[in-house]
Amino acid sequence: MINQHTGGIFQTSENPPMPQKTPITVAYGDGIGPEIMQATLKVLEAAGAQLVPEVIEIGEQVYLSGNTAGIAPASWASLRRTKVFLKSPITTPQGGGYKSLNVTIRKTLGLYANVRPCVSYHPFVATKHPTMDLVIVRENEEDLYAGIEHRQTDEVYQCLKLITRPGCEKIVRYAFEYARAHDRKKVTCMTKDNIMKMCDGLFHKVFDEIKVEYPEIDSEHYIIDIGAARLATRPERFDVIVTLNLYGDIISDIAAEMTGSVGLAGSANIGEHVAMFEAIHGSAPDIAGKGIANPSGLLLGAVMMLVHIRQSAVASKIHNAWLRTIEDGVFTADLLGQGQAAIGRPFGSMDFADAVIERLGQNPKKFKTVSYEDAPQTRETQRPLYVRAAPAKKEIVGVDVFVHAADVTADFLAGRLVTLAHQPRPAGFKLQMITNRGVKVWPGGFPETFCTDHWRCRFLGVDSADAPRSVTHSDVVDLLHNLVSDGLDFIKTEHLCSFDGEAGYALGQGQ
Amino acid sequence: MINQHTGGIFQTSENPPMPQKTPITVAYGDGIGPEIMQATLKVLEAAGAQLVPEVIEIGEQVYLSGNTAGIAPASWASLRRTKVFLKSPITTPQGGGYKSLNVTIRKTLGLYANVRPCVSYHPFVATKHPTMDLVIVRENEEDLYAGIEHRQTDEVYQCLKLITRPGCEKIVRYAFEYARAHDRKKVTCMTKDNIMKMCDGLFHKVFDEIKVEYPEIDSEHYIIDIGAARLATRPERFDVIVTLNLYGDIISDIAAEMTGSVGLAGSANIGEHVAMFEAIHGSAPDIAGKGIANPSGLLLGAVMMLVHIRQSAVASKIHNAWLRTIEDGVFTADLLGQGQAAIGRPFGSMDFADAVIERLGQNPKKFKTVSYEDAPQTRETQRPLYVRAAPAKKEIVGVDVFVHAADVTADFLAGRLVTLAHQPRPAGFKLQMITNRGVKVWPGGFPETFCTDHWRCRFLGVDSADAPRSVTHSDVVDLLHNLVSDGLDFIKTEHLCSFDGEAGYALGQGQ
Repeated sequence: MINQHTGGIFQTSENPPMPQKTPITVAYGDGIGPEIMQATLKVLEAAGAQLVPEVIEIGEQVYLSGNTAGIAPASWASLRRTKVFLKSPITTPQGGGYKSLNVTIRKTLGLYANVRPCVSYHPFVATKHPTMDLVIVRENEEDLYAGIEHRQTDEVYQCLKLITRPGCEKIVRYAFEYARAHDRKKVTCMTKDNIMKMCDGLFHKVFDEIKVEYPEIDSEHYIIDIGAARLATRPERFDVIVTLNLYGDIISDIAAEMTGSVGLAGSANIGEHVAMFEAIHGSAPDIAGKGIANPSGLLLGAVMMLVHIRQSAVASKIHNAWLRTIEDGVFTADLLGQGQAAIGRPFGSMDFADAVIERLGQNPKKFKTVSYEDAPQTRETQRPLYVRAAPAKKEIVGVDVFVHAADVTADFLAGRLVTLAHQPRPAGFKLQMITNRGVKVWPGGFPETFCTDHWRCRFLGVDSADAPRSVTHSDVVDLLHNLVSDGLDFIKTEHLCSFDGEAGYALGQGQ
Repeated sequence: MINQHTGGIFQTSENPPMPQKTPITVAYGDGIGPEIMQATLKVLEAAGAQLVPEVIEIGEQVYLSGNTAGIAPASWASLRRTKVFLKSPITTPQGGGYKSLNVTIRKTLGLYANVRPCVSYHPFVATKHPTMDLVIVRENEEDLYAGIEHRQTDEVYQCLKLITRPGCEKIVRYAFEYARAHDRKKVTCMTKDNIMKMCDGLFHKVFDEIKVEYPEIDSEHYIIDIGAARLATRPERFDVIVTLNLYGDIISDIAAEMTGSVGLAGSANIGEHVAMFEAIHGSAPDIAGKGIANPSGLLLGAVMMLVHIRQSAVASKIHNAWLRTIEDGVFTADLLGQGQAAIGRPFGSMDFADAVIERLGQNPKKFKTVSYEDAPQTRETQRPLYVRAAPAKKEIVGVDVFVHAADVTADFLAGRLVTLAHQPRPAGFKLQMITNRGVKVWPGGFPETFCTDHWRCRFLGVDSADAPRSVTHSDVVDLLHNLVSDGLDFIKTEHLCSFDGEAGYALGQGQ
């Protein structure tokens, strides 16, 4: 038995203090989920992990019973009680109306950080990138995954990308804390702030603000397209990568596949209250029930869980035994024929688990031995992840009104709007521009610009002398009232605000 | 001299009919732009391309002169006149307020398709992917690149992702037409429609609608993260890939870098009226003015231009001579030390051009000889790219109102809104839910959900018996009026509409 509080520094003794068992919530999931969970729990138990699993139902059956979120209300109670979730992959049924359970869990429980180690196991697992060893820290709650979509006209659909300062601060700080705790040397930030200067610009700016607090860690920034290209060709030059949700989704799958097998990677989803651990692969219904699935991804997810709940010694023990198992060529069917040294027959899920169990206490011979240490109890509480700043002085200076109109020209539309903007009172609005899909089409539009039935009409507040003025909410309502009186089909609005005097809106393209 | 109307099928004769010269607009750009343009134009001339170049100024100097779009009004006239643009890379100055010129040009001129061939030149250029030969057709006008960003609260920034039916139809049809014209066997669509069911769902749906018109071409769909991972590991399994703007941006850079050199790729930006051709690399200011830059990217972009303007025989002649030049180990400094067979010394930009010119008329020995053919004159006009359908029956059923409020709870906010929704008239609205970053926080929110100062409040129209009712624009204005009277800081609205009875809005996460 290993004392999990000593972080693997001290040897085991005959009669160590009996550690307290940690309750965790477990979901067996769909497809191959039950098989790999069984195999994983068997290894955890044999290694001496001190756990009290509570089992909940999630996924396909819950969806099909009419729950569009894929999780029953009672299950939330378990997650909130244990605050630790070991989760097998699930299947989301085909067809409309089902929300992604993973997204819901992550967001409802505030799991802001998705942590994905991507490691090559060359020469045992075939890969073109033998020296990969990087960790992707993906923002996990916001971006386009807020799932706020509206069909706006016959032709146009919209999804909102939301990026927040607390979201950026939390994930960037987590990435640097992770780097420090795991002795990583560099954090690379990836954004698309050459195009999304406000949203991605905020992420980059927060990265620049926080990196100075970690002078011992190198930092760099890439535009995501270049960064992803470098990652796909020279992964060995990366260490920790922190990025926005969508980019992280894409590059973490790229990196995982580049290691040679997506079946070997686990991931953690970290929140301030709750954390979730899982394999990165899906539920693979085609091989479900055959007992042949590779439990490695979930097992390595469970290793991350053990570190999280301060059973680092057990985590190290399992991870090292697993590395040795791979070195010994004990391969499930998915890895057979890959790389070197496979023992001839494919191992089933439980056989593989038994092989890992046999090697508990052994270290790898070629790979570096893993040695996790429990983080100081106080680290997470030393500094709040986010402190809300005093509000800026916000002033409304205008409003973008979006209009649904097919088969009109920008000039025709502008003609109507210019008049309406100034009624019924002298201190009204001025139509500054109209764009279509972001491109300015009035004033001074080009006939080549293809126009959909979706027009963004920018009104700026002006006084009777046509000078800019501050706008009230009532002014906006009055303007909308005017547009409605004239029969215009407005479909959405976006206030134009300045914050401490700085414009909080982008120019139109061509403006 | 080659007759450019015969598409390379017939041999040259001593006195072919003198082809008409085609006016093109040329921009020398910034950084290494002038050097590579000079080298490229020298090759074009020597190969007998029939061109009348008109030179325009774009880029850094134009930006710095105070033009936030980076292009002077007079330059647009040239582009509209010639409809063909050969463009060197430009530099966008650091600092706020400058719009991406490439985005502006693409969108203003409706260049809806970005076409990027990604080809390996193994063993002459080192690559881990020796048999890559794919083409990425990237939607070029919409998505998050509409550049519509608003700072909404102290903490929250927003960018609009807009996807349109005409945009999807045009790019998908282009991809299949391209595949047919270039004898490609398969078109792969990549979207993220498991998350963005409406926006990316539309793209996927349009792909499924159009693919049946091309039964001789295989088709498949990948979720972008999986697709990008496959591309990064097994590029040889792709042929033509069609995808949305942002994904295309990322994967086209990945694919280009995987070929071994981003200095060898050109790209086309195709519109209904105008087309632009360029290298995929940037202006590389660090090596500007030294005469050492590799002109290959721009030269291969020019080859695509020649095919576009129906000088396919010249295009083939240049492309084959260029392939032979690479095979002969004539390398600019960027490729030196790469792959096999480099002649010892690095060639300068103009030396390299001269080496290509020396080989005009020769074919490659190892690579496949290229043989472009002029497309039938009528293809583009055979079928309109997009025909607007009859409008659906649109009904407003409610409105999402976004509220800026720091340091309040969802319950507190809901308490105020529930009352306001029903005033001043019995046929009003009902507050259905509140979300924060897309996650439902009322009714039935969880304390673990981290809340920013940005609340989406969904109001559904109800009659006096609380049954759903159709809403008018005036009803929305009245509701906003109520909210304003109560001092609520609403920042934006999104109408909830049904189209032919189908809901045009997504559920909240956890709803």
